[in-house]
Amino acid sequence: MAEFLVFANQQHLVQGDEAVRTAERERAMELRAAGNLKRLWRRPGRRGWIALWEAADATELHDQLASLPMYPYLEITIEALATHPQER
Amino acid sequence: MAEFLVFANQQHLVQGDEAVRTAERERAMELRAAGNLKRLWRRPGRRGWIALWEAADATELHDQLASLPMYPYLEITIEALATHPQER
Amino acid sequence: MAEFLVFANQQHLVQGDEAVRTAERERAMELRAAGNLKRLWRRPGRRGWIALWEAADATELHDQLASLPMYPYLEITIEALATHPQER
Amino acid sequence: MAEFLVFANQQHLVQGDEAVRTAERERAMELRAAGNLKRLWRRPGRRGWIALWEAADATELHDQLASLPMYPYLEITIEALATHPQER
Amino acid sequence: MAEFLVFANQQHLVQGDEAVRTAERERAMELRAAGNLKRLWRRPGRRGWIALWEAADATELHDQLASLPMYPYLEITIEALATHPQER
Amino acid sequence: MAEFLVFANQQHLVQGDEAVRTAERERAMELRAAGNLKRLWRRPGRRGWIALWEAADATELHDQLASLPMYPYLEITIEALATHPQER
Amino acid sequence: MAEFLVFANQQHLVQGDEAVRTAERERAMELRAAGNLKRLWRRPGRRGWIALWEAADATELHDQLASLPMYPYLEITIEALATHPQER
Amino acid sequence: MAEFLVFANQQHLVQGDEAVRTAERERAMELRAAGNLKRLWRRPGRRGWIALWEAADATELHDQLASLPMYPYLEITIEALATHPQER
Amino acid sequence: MAEFLVFANQQHLVQGDEAVRTAERERAMELRAAGNLKRLWRRPGRRGWIALWEAADATELHDQLASLPMYPYLEITIEALATHPQER
Amino acid sequence: MAEFLVFANQQHLVQGDEAVRTAERERAMELRAAGNLKRLWRRPGRRGWIALWEAADATELHDQLASLPMYPYLEITIEALATHPQER
Repeated sequence: MAEFLVFANQQHLVQGDEAVRTAERERAMELRAAGNLKRLWRRPGRRGWIALWEAADATELHDQLASLPMYPYLEITIEALATHPQER
Repeated sequence: MAEFLVFANQQHLVQGDEAVRTAERERAMELRAAGNLKRLWRRPGRRGWIALWEAADATELHDQLASLPMYPYLEITIEALATHPQER
Repeated sequence: MAEFLVFANQQHLVQGDEAVRTAERERAMELRAAGNLKRLWRRPGRRGWIALWEAADATELHDQLASLPMYPYLEITIEALATHPQER
Repeated sequence: MAEFLVFANQQHLVQGDEAVRTAERERAMELRAAGNLKRLWRRPGRRGWIALWEAADATELHDQLASLPMYPYLEITIEALATHPQER
Repeated sequence: MAEFLVFANQQHLVQGDEAVRTAERERAMELRAAGNLKRLWRRPGRRGWIALWEAADATELHDQLASLPMYPYLEITIEALATHPQER
Repeated sequence: MAEFLVFANQQHLVQGDEAVRTAERERAMELRAAGNLKRLWRRPGRRGWIALWEAADATELHDQLASLPMYPYLEITIEALATHPQER
Repeated sequence: MAEFLVFANQQHLVQGDEAVRTAERERAMELRAAGNLKRLWRRPGRRGWIALWEAADATELHDQLASLPMYPYLEITIEALATHPQER
Repeated sequence: MAEFLVFANQQHLVQGDEAVRTAERERAMELRAAGNLKRLWRRPGRRGWIALWEAADATELHDQLASLPMYPYLEITIEALATHPQER
Repeated sequence: MAEFLVFANQQHLVQGDEAVRTAERERAMELRAAGNLKRLWRRPGRRGWIALWEAADATELHDQLASLPMYPYLEITIEALATHPQER
Repeated sequence: MAEFLVFANQQHLVQGDEAVRTAERERAMELRAAGNLKRLWRRPGRRGWIALWEAADATELHDQLASLPMYPYLEITIEALATHPQER
């Protein structure tokens, strides 16, 4: 499995927010249970999040991010992580 | 307590501005009374503000920022401050 | 304990590289054993690293980063992380 | 007195470091005693500092910053602060 | 009096433009007569302006900028100017 | 195999240039023969290059980039590519 | 034929999305069949794409990009590629 | 006459596009006939343009740019050009 | 005469500083006497300066800036200013 | 022939400057005579230049830029230009 840092920013508020956010939480739980969403943080004062993600590759990562109900409202950048020699 | 600089920009005007701003002032007063909002400044010519904030950690800081009535209209960045040896 | 993402870039090569790098590895091992350096990655093609760090606060984080033998050669930025509601 | 945030970055190491740093500390103490240097912080992982400064105006601020022994090694930006209505 | 360069950008067109612009011109004339707005230029091809401004301090500058009828439509940055030794 | 775009900039000239460049060409040929370096371009007027690279993952990509004799002189950024639905 | 990297970002969602996307896919297929659209990738987490394109010159490239049904919704930057000596 | 490079970006589509574009073409022809608009290019994949412009000075340049029917929809930056010694 | 804002940054210290600075002051005085250098400011904390300059055109401006003894040590950007309708 | 805007910045002074600059002028004259270097400008206050260039394609452009004696000291970016419909 490859590791990625995912930085998601949500610039605008979402109408019908509550329903979308409930669906978001459920999908996130599934991805967590599946071992893809390893860690999730907030950046203080921002509506987006930072995640440590595991996926087979960038293609699976994209598909999983695009499956988030909040996806249309997020600006996402990723950082592909290489294993550090100290952790091999 | 940890110290943070908080930079808030408000790009767009807010409708129903007066009510929101009154609520904002009241919440700010509470956070000031609680010892979290230590100083507050304007940047000349901008609608946002800069604050010196004290909070237990980044999580409490986020919760307090998110409790501001103006929060949905603000773009916020923070700078976590470390104590300088000269002030220890 | 507070969590931080630490982004370190090393722009120039270091003379006497081997000795410094050995010392670096040893100090990193100590910080890992102490529970501060939680994860360490390489960014593909770059000489620096990304770390997930735990410290009491930004002041302890600064002292630990400054204790790295490579510290004089690194450009470091940090991201203070807030706990996400889904992980509380 | 006008208030300023001062952001100082020191990119390169300074030769004869110890003597310069001692002089720097002394000059900082003088400016603190004179009521100009109100607060001083470190940014975690960086060699520079952030300060809250009071000076009669931008001209006095410049003269005081230029009087720091480390001044030739610092890249400095400032933010002129306006008093917030809540603090008037 | 302190001197400032003020850079104002106006990204979007303003509805009811003519009335706002007439009010803007009148307010600008008052600030010019009061000795605050010293010079005013256009940047070729842009809707905003650059001004050389004199004010007691950053707080007065902010209040004067916020008194412009166009203020809600402007993105403003300022540069606090220090007197150059050659002009003292 | 995962695909990556690799952007390499070489800011400074390299002393003993000719020997390093010959070694670089040879290592590039090996990586090309191994099926990792798929395409290589110049950006007009720049000393660096852009490559389309295939590697098992970001860790292998990093090791291969670090094996280039020119590696110490390059600033590298990468873009992890996801397969587009039209090419699946 | 000249080679170009094309980076396309789509910031906002498109209404009547499905019809536009079907037309987009068809036009892309035509350009692929014509030998202009050589490769197409997704950037993980983003709505846009990266393409390797061949065209007679920048003018033909512009006309082909402007012929995409999604063109009005895309922000596009290009990188003109020069053949690397190793591939001549 | 002074020479300028003019970079115009048009981010959003214009309603009633066809009438505005026809008027734009006519005004551009007039400026070309008057010897002000010397050259006009497209940047591949972008809705804006780059022009080589001659005008008496920056003030005349601004007036001519502001006379374009598309002016309200353009973000413009300019580069004032100095004659190179090789062309004097 | 055309007006320009000139922003000059001096990143590195200059050896033989005193002689160069004396020559710089003298040349600046000449340009001031000639009516080209209208105003000169310091940016607080920086080694460079901001100037309001008048010259026949960008070519004369370049020649005058290049005549400064400090010219080899300065990074300069300029802003060509257009007369504002309120000052015509 | 394809057209390009070439932006060249020269950050550092060149030792043995006079000989290099003479050779540069001669090579530029050749490229001008060959119909590649169409126009050449200075940016006020900068050591580099802007050129309008014609070349068969990006590969020829790169070879011609790399043939300039000043090439090792220049940071170059290019803009590939597409013919505008008004000039076809």
